[in-house]
Amino acid sequence: MNTIRVEQSGAFVERFSIPPTGDGVLNGLRFAVKDLVDVAGRRTGCGNPTRLETNPPAVVSAVCVDQLLAAGAQCEGKTVTDELAFSLLGINHFYGTPLNPAAPERVPGGSSSGSASAVACGLVDFAIGTDTGGSVRVPASNCGIWGWRPTYGVVSVAGVMPLAPMFDTVGILARSADVLRRAAAVLLADAKPQAAATPATIHVVSEAFDTADAEVRDALRPAVEFVERVFDIRVQRTSLDELCGDVSAADWNSWRDMYRRLVGAEALSCHGAWLASERPPLGPITESGFKHAESLDRSRLAEVIGRRERYCRHLRRALGPRDLLCLPTAPSVAPLKDMVSLDRNSDYYRLTVAFNAIAGVGRLPQVSMPLATASSAPIGLSLIGAYGEDALLLYAVDRIENSRSSG
Amino acid sequence: MNTIRVEQSGAFVERFSIPPTGDGVLNGLRFAVKDLVDVAGRRTGCGNPTRLETNPPAVVSAVCVDQLLAAGAQCEGKTVTDELAFSLLGINHFYGTPLNPAAPERVPGGSSSGSASAVACGLVDFAIGTDTGGSVRVPASNCGIWGWRPTYGVVSVAGVMPLAPMFDTVGILARSADVLRRAAAVLLADAKPQAAATPATIHVVSEAFDTADAEVRDALRPAVEFVERVFDIRVQRTSLDELCGDVSAADWNSWRDMYRRLVGAEALSCHGAWLASERPPLGPITESGFKHAESLDRSRLAEVIGRRERYCRHLRRALGPRDLLCLPTAPSVAPLKDMVSLDRNSDYYRLTVAFNAIAGVGRLPQVSMPLATASSAPIGLSLIGAYGEDALLLYAVDRIENSRSSG
Repeated sequence: MNTIRVEQSGAFVERFSIPPTGDGVLNGLRFAVKDLVDVAGRRTGCGNPTRLETNPPAVVSAVCVDQLLAAGAQCEGKTVTDELAFSLLGINHFYGTPLNPAAPERVPGGSSSGSASAVACGLVDFAIGTDTGGSVRVPASNCGIWGWRPTYGVVSVAGVMPLAPMFDTVGILARSADVLRRAAAVLLADAKPQAAATPATIHVVSEAFDTADAEVRDALRPAVEFVERVFDIRVQRTSLDELCGDVSAADWNSWRDMYRRLVGAEALSCHGAWLASERPPLGPITESGFKHAESLDRSRLAEVIGRRERYCRHLRRALGPRDLLCLPTAPSVAPLKDMVSLDRNSDYYRLTVAFNAIAGVGRLPQVSMPLATASSAPIGLSLIGAYGEDALLLYAVDRIENSRSSG
Repeated sequence: MNTIRVEQSGAFVERFSIPPTGDGVLNGLRFAVKDLVDVAGRRTGCGNPTRLETNPPAVVSAVCVDQLLAAGAQCEGKTVTDELAFSLLGINHFYGTPLNPAAPERVPGGSSSGSASAVACGLVDFAIGTDTGGSVRVPASNCGIWGWRPTYGVVSVAGVMPLAPMFDTVGILARSADVLRRAAAVLLADAKPQAAATPATIHVVSEAFDTADAEVRDALRPAVEFVERVFDIRVQRTSLDELCGDVSAADWNSWRDMYRRLVGAEALSCHGAWLASERPPLGPITESGFKHAESLDRSRLAEVIGRRERYCRHLRRALGPRDLLCLPTAPSVAPLKDMVSLDRNSDYYRLTVAFNAIAGVGRLPQVSMPLATASSAPIGLSLIGAYGEDALLLYAVDRIENSRSSG
């Protein structure tokens, strides 16, 4: 893939260069930071011009940025984000749509749109993204790169704009599984990953493959078979109601409804006062997200929080430390830019939210791997790991990439 | 205990009455909310007058407040907090020191000082607190009430001022274990707590008892023996280096250093920009906390984050789902108001931070139980549960209280 010029990519809101503060496993690597994450001395814009104006400049960088700088990486700038991180499309009303170089006629996906674009365009080696409901995984899938959402709570979110603290995480997008694993290891600060461990069982999530577009299913079939060969184990089809101990989990509406209501309730808690006092202009997708959040009956959150905890608890019991789930990152390839619906109720949006809710609800780590294409566009195959088993997951993913290049 | 008048308590920053929004297990109970937590239509002051002025009014209540209202409880007002929740003493430079009715000459402890005071004074049945490094547990211990810090990440912190997101939790202070368990069950939204389970092993943390003041050790010995009789199991002495798989864990300086550096780094990420742009007057304890945070070398966080994850991982392996740790909530009874040191390097402060860092570092739930007194002041005995086993822990605590009243 040829390198694309910065101006063509539309990936950055600001370019600058911060040298590393230490030596380490990221020596010589360049990274970009989603503009939802503080960099010392700069205003964090969060994809909204009013926010950019009213946010005072950061005095220190977010902890995650400092970790990467200390491990030898150089920071190259801040990247476009979907407004307030509240969309999976990669379209920002004010700052435009970063280029998806793998499928230029399609959206890059969001909300870490600029981070995915900067990596896919070859402008940086990796980038910081945030992932509440798919914001690292979906753009990784759309742009044909590697994306990691960590186990909930293991990477510092201090200095990062919250959207829904129940689900918010800081993750990494990278051009190779090797760089992904190294950058993730720095954020995890885990001195002894169990590098030798191999997956025990890989559960293919049957509902996800059954629901995905036929072209996605067909494109991913060889990828799943490849994963089987790499680890010399047979994957087994498992349904979500078994994994979650609840028949409702076989219905994607349950996941989407649960995720949407919880994120809506928390997002309004995080941003409602600011929206009401500043009355900032918002793009249509963001506006519709907060409209929905305002319409929620907050006295009826108990059922949905309870369902989340029930699913999470069962998933935790169902997955041994070396077990993985396998599913398409999204049900379809990225929408075409000139045909994309901004409606959160479109089939594409609903199912993409639902697929990506599994790791969020379960507090589980997930990696999207660029192992296939359909309609000449990338589509990611995802592996979800057990709680806290990010190191094993990233090692498995690295082995898959190595086997591909040597195979 | 006689009820104390509101004005005498100094517990509230604002009194009002919000009726319940639903019917449930908290019908008829009244609660107060720490002024770090949003209540719709009101400004959240966070214990700092500039913050109170510059924070726009909340448009919705924090998710945790809405959960309690929906379960039948009535909200009675907002309570004093240590400034920006950044102290364990219960002394607020601007809003005073709420009354500790169980030991009026001593500090109530903080940062959930007003919540503890309101409960201990009999003004409400329970109160919302927040706990980053002991801010629920220490005031519960000082004031002779029950206090619960949840498993990290299971109770929504949306609409709650962050101090250090790596450790921040929302917890409950209550006058009885029964009320504590019921309010906690609402926040946990866990339909099926394993109510029948009893503890398998109770590990008495040897370093904590060895380090505590002699009067605390003597006062808690019968309480530990009582817990043994309730569950008909023998407790076993276990050292922190065994539990954490690292000799450094036997040294309280390791816990205190780790906690203090991580909270300092995250607190500066959360509040540094606001402090630099608003230049608000701060009380001396808060000032010293941020001075220390500013002095940290952020390029050297990797070691301390790594140590935290190592300890956490070992603790998780060492504790089975039905195992508990047992230790004094604090090494001493609450300091006398006219002799208290505001120095974070005092022995009392250092050790109190260190004792309370265990649950924080391990992401584990903890309950402080008012089972003893020394020098005519309360001192709490704490139980720490396994990750996610809040329901079992709260049930065990409830059984202890029941056995006491019937015994």
